[in-house]
Amino acid sequence: MPNRNYAIVGTGALGGFYGARLQKADFEVNFLLRSDYDRVKKHGLIVESPEGDFTLPQIRAYHDSRKMPQCDVVIVALKTTQNHLLPKILPHLLKDDGVVLVLQNGLNIEPEVAKIVGSERVIGGLCFLCSYKVSPGHICHLDYGAITLGEYTENYKKIGITNRLHQIASDFRRAQIPIKLSGDLLLSRWKKLVWNIPYNGLSVVLNARTDELMANPDTLILVEEIMTEVVAGAKICDRIIPDDFISDMLDYTHKMKPYRTSMKIDYDESRPLEVEAIFGNPIRAAQQGGIKLPQIEVLYRMLKFVNAQRQEAERTRRLLGVD
Amino acid sequence: MPNRNYAIVGTGALGGFYGARLQKADFEVNFLLRSDYDRVKKHGLIVESPEGDFTLPQIRAYHDSRKMPQCDVVIVALKTTQNHLLPKILPHLLKDDGVVLVLQNGLNIEPEVAKIVGSERVIGGLCFLCSYKVSPGHICHLDYGAITLGEYTENYKKIGITNRLHQIASDFRRAQIPIKLSGDLLLSRWKKLVWNIPYNGLSVVLNARTDELMANPDTLILVEEIMTEVVAGAKICDRIIPDDFISDMLDYTHKMKPYRTSMKIDYDESRPLEVEAIFGNPIRAAQQGGIKLPQIEVLYRMLKFVNAQRQEAERTRRLLGVD
Repeated sequence: MPNRNYAIVGTGALGGFYGARLQKADFEVNFLLRSDYDRVKKHGLIVESPEGDFTLPQIRAYHDSRKMPQCDVVIVALKTTQNHLLPKILPHLLKDDGVVLVLQNGLNIEPEVAKIVGSERVIGGLCFLCSYKVSPGHICHLDYGAITLGEYTENYKKIGITNRLHQIASDFRRAQIPIKLSGDLLLSRWKKLVWNIPYNGLSVVLNARTDELMANPDTLILVEEIMTEVVAGAKICDRIIPDDFISDMLDYTHKMKPYRTSMKIDYDESRPLEVEAIFGNPIRAAQQGGIKLPQIEVLYRMLKFVNAQRQEAERTRRLLGVD
Repeated sequence: MPNRNYAIVGTGALGGFYGARLQKADFEVNFLLRSDYDRVKKHGLIVESPEGDFTLPQIRAYHDSRKMPQCDVVIVALKTTQNHLLPKILPHLLKDDGVVLVLQNGLNIEPEVAKIVGSERVIGGLCFLCSYKVSPGHICHLDYGAITLGEYTENYKKIGITNRLHQIASDFRRAQIPIKLSGDLLLSRWKKLVWNIPYNGLSVVLNARTDELMANPDTLILVEEIMTEVVAGAKICDRIIPDDFISDMLDYTHKMKPYRTSMKIDYDESRPLEVEAIFGNPIRAAQQGGIKLPQIEVLYRMLKFVNAQRQEAERTRRLLGVD
């Protein structure tokens, strides 16, 4: 079977990292860029990583998705706050028998993509990656990197592990990216939220790193209570997360190096926060099941407030041309 | 009947204001001070107020409560975070038939004072006052000033309005301080918390004034939901706050001038926050009644976190002698 070709929609700290790894493993990778296009077209990508630094002096960089070749696998690596762009990008970028791989955080992202390309052409992926963009085209990989892949189906009906999941997994593994396969994408998404909701939310609202949240007895209780609410949300969606998963997550975070969450990095960089994908959608999913998640709701509304304040300040800064 | 004499324990923005007004109305007022003692002993008190500025060049200032004369009414106007000092101050300061008037925010403050002087000698007061200390002995009164007075009894049993309440009210009115009398101190305290809990808490955590919290749709919802939890807490303590009280409070705050809450001022000045009196005690009271107040608990734990961080920074600052 010939090599699958890939498209990376959103060449930032995450999409740039995985795309570069795939290209380095000799896959054809087509990168879509916006603000970083000129720089990256000229200079390629630089990846610093504890697993080995490398440079790709030349990449297939595009500024306009309509000029890109059709691909077998289109990886969506934008922030979810940019998903309104997808209806214009995905349809002509995807081969007829291609799939969209959604590498985004949060809940109920796949149904939005399914509306554009059909649910039979959507795969979800959850990335456990610490990386950030040093400058355009220059990515620093700090730690981790594994991806959990799962098939999307309408209403997240479990269909187990398909052949094409195995095929994509094999490509990623060839590119030195550890892959787990999930037969239940919705369960995997809720499990990831057990970590993402408390730490992303509290790190922004309280201006704190993970180690600070773990060292204070009150925020430690809060983290655990919020995790318990996430588990309750999953349960109402018919997904059972075992009790010891929470204590595993707490142990894991205790042992982590002091970590600035991805939402905190977005906040510090004045980027819009992924509030709806990570907080709003789980709250609404639970609500449809008939329960409230009151503590998560506090975080959600606080984040919407600080996000609005920050975006307003950013608009003013841009209008005034201040840097 | 001869004039009652007064003691002010805690001569800050609140105690200094009411004490100065009482002295101006010819009552004997004895002020207990700590860090501001030298300055105020020498220069007296200055009160700026839209109701008229005035100066008291000389006041009965004390640094040591044991040197003060016994008083008919001892007004506790410390922050509740200083209440551990009261067992050493109150017993010898109070006349045998005197009363302690607790002018502090929060819930279940009076039982602590009752342990020191006996519950039959405690009156509670709720101040609706905007004032701040410009410098030692210099108080700026911005707005409002009314006090609601109510008798304390063991377990907050309602005993209606007593004769001595009327007497103290008459003294305060002589000093141009508007007074309301409450026959149910516990109900009055819970009602005040309907405002204090959401606005004090959110203003600190979100670094916001009241007008900013009211203008954003998410914090507006949050304020209302938190108010609803306070009403639920009151109910479990057998105190019914009518539904329209919440919409009245929201209307009232919409019409207020942009306001920095007292807890936000404490935070900005690096003073310890009154977290236990205003948040911890109501949460525990509700818990004893068998209910959780989950959204208030989020605020409570966040405030304990930011308070701990701020106090730690303040200790470091003092150790290093930085200003």
